[in-house]
Amino acid sequence: MTTELVVDVKNQVKNALSEVEKRNIENVFFVACGGSSALMYPSKYVFDREAKKLDAHLYSSNEFIHRNHAKLGTQSLVILCSHSGNTPETVEAAKFAKSNGALTVSLTHEVESPLAKASEVVLKYEWGQEANGFTTNYSVLYQLVFGVLKVAENNVNFEKMERSLENLQEVYEKAASLYHEKAVNFGQQYKDEKIIYTMASGANYGIAYSYAICILMEMQWIHSHAIHAGEYFHGPFEIIDEETPFIILLGLDETRPLEERALAFSKRYGKKLVVLDAKDFEFSGIEEDVKGYIAPLVLNYVLRKYADNLAENRNHPLSKRRYMWKVDY
Amino acid sequence: MTTELVVDVKNQVKNALSEVEKRNIENVFFVACGGSSALMYPSKYVFDREAKKLDAHLYSSNEFIHRNHAKLGTQSLVILCSHSGNTPETVEAAKFAKSNGALTVSLTHEVESPLAKASEVVLKYEWGQEANGFTTNYSVLYQLVFGVLKVAENNVNFEKMERSLENLQEVYEKAASLYHEKAVNFGQQYKDEKIIYTMASGANYGIAYSYAICILMEMQWIHSHAIHAGEYFHGPFEIIDEETPFIILLGLDETRPLEERALAFSKRYGKKLVVLDAKDFEFSGIEEDVKGYIAPLVLNYVLRKYADNLAENRNHPLSKRRYMWKVDY
Repeated sequence: MTTELVVDVKNQVKNALSEVEKRNIENVFFVACGGSSALMYPSKYVFDREAKKLDAHLYSSNEFIHRNHAKLGTQSLVILCSHSGNTPETVEAAKFAKSNGALTVSLTHEVESPLAKASEVVLKYEWGQEANGFTTNYSVLYQLVFGVLKVAENNVNFEKMERSLENLQEVYEKAASLYHEKAVNFGQQYKDEKIIYTMASGANYGIAYSYAICILMEMQWIHSHAIHAGEYFHGPFEIIDEETPFIILLGLDETRPLEERALAFSKRYGKKLVVLDAKDFEFSGIEEDVKGYIAPLVLNYVLRKYADNLAENRNHPLSKRRYMWKVDY
Repeated sequence: MTTELVVDVKNQVKNALSEVEKRNIENVFFVACGGSSALMYPSKYVFDREAKKLDAHLYSSNEFIHRNHAKLGTQSLVILCSHSGNTPETVEAAKFAKSNGALTVSLTHEVESPLAKASEVVLKYEWGQEANGFTTNYSVLYQLVFGVLKVAENNVNFEKMERSLENLQEVYEKAASLYHEKAVNFGQQYKDEKIIYTMASGANYGIAYSYAICILMEMQWIHSHAIHAGEYFHGPFEIIDEETPFIILLGLDETRPLEERALAFSKRYGKKLVVLDAKDFEFSGIEEDVKGYIAPLVLNYVLRKYADNLAENRNHPLSKRRYMWKVDY
């Protein structure tokens, strides 16, 4: 891992936290679109469980603007994200938040982008095959989130999370290696499916959501829907049969019993079940108190390999689009 | 409309509010499963826009228990709902909330049910074809919600909402009558579809959600997914083509521009579009300030007629199940 980049990320987070400390922050809004919004679901889970005072809300950028939450104001921290920094709704959301007096902190890969320019604080993350997990979006966001909890209300998990994230890349690679054959099989066995559901709960739900809307619907044009494992038994489960594929995620957080119950039922009536269980992975160097929060990141990393294999077997590159970047909308 | 039932609902709400007044409520949790959870989405929207102090959260019952929100406590109001009052996760959630010191208020059709017994305050709502809108679940919940906002922070919309809800049934019937032919056509034209997406934003998203998971997936075994109109352009829209049906809802709340944009795009690349637009409906007796909140209720009422027609044309009664009530889970 490049020491320089690690130090740089830590310094960037430190700088963001020094801005947070200048304010009397009472609530946090997570604002982004699509995959960048899904990235924030685990952090909303963290706030719900850990924050004694701060309230946390999560909205898609345009909903955030038009909904116009009554408690958005000078005591708000608005955390935004756009990979390119060009997402128009998110740039608008940053301006809207600022005009309401909120502190805006944005994550992006492009520090010269419109989002970066519209935000008071910018956190640049690394990206791609060669990037170390510590410097990528999920990790940078967690460092910010636990840092905010530390400076705002003395939460003790910041250092634990930071130390754990330094070992994230190794956990990623071991997990992907362990599931390599499963990922290859997935691409072969599911290449002709017209619909594939995903399912999870708690900290992992966002991973199921981004897989459904970004990987399957957007990048593969396969019908999909992220089912909440607790909601499953109150409607969606009537859809399962031996022909309907489900990707079922099992994490390590407190809602795991929901995912286990959904899996147990699905095994009785479904046949096309793709199960990723974080219990199978080695979490060397990840501290016990934050394992449940780290699990979705690892599931997400491994699932990306499943996507690569699916795309290859379908001769449908993940970069292929019919509307995005091609037509006005 | 039976004056007795109206008076009874008002008295029930008054009684609930007197319990709320005894507490120093700081936050509200909406807790239920499936359709009863979807029922609460518009109320979460109301709180976000109207509440100057109270925070509002919404979780599926089992997620609520296991997530164990750090701010659930003696200053929390937990609003639950189960039609039969038998939903095990919701009954457990009521007990869990109570054990954490929260005030529990439950909506149900069955006042002798386990949920009613586990809750400090019970609100009975009416149900079915002959019930007047004022006495049904959405209306009773809104009366409670605006009542809480009134007693907790002097919100001025309670009386406006109450007066408007007294005219709800007439609005329902006129809207259903106006869309009668469209509903009939829907049942005929879409009876052979394997997948039907739904889409909306803001106060209307919960209606799209319940239609996807309860009507289409649960009651018709048709694949579905509720797409948020703002998220549409960040993944899901790549799925639309001339063969893929979308039910698109347009409400009257502040997020309507999101729904209009999603519809405009869908019209360019989709052909099977089922549009329900609240602007078409007559809102006689509904006050201007609450029209945006009432629109989802009317959309929901009209959509139910679409469901009736679909079920009839498919010879698949809405009551048909393969797992629910039939197997253990």
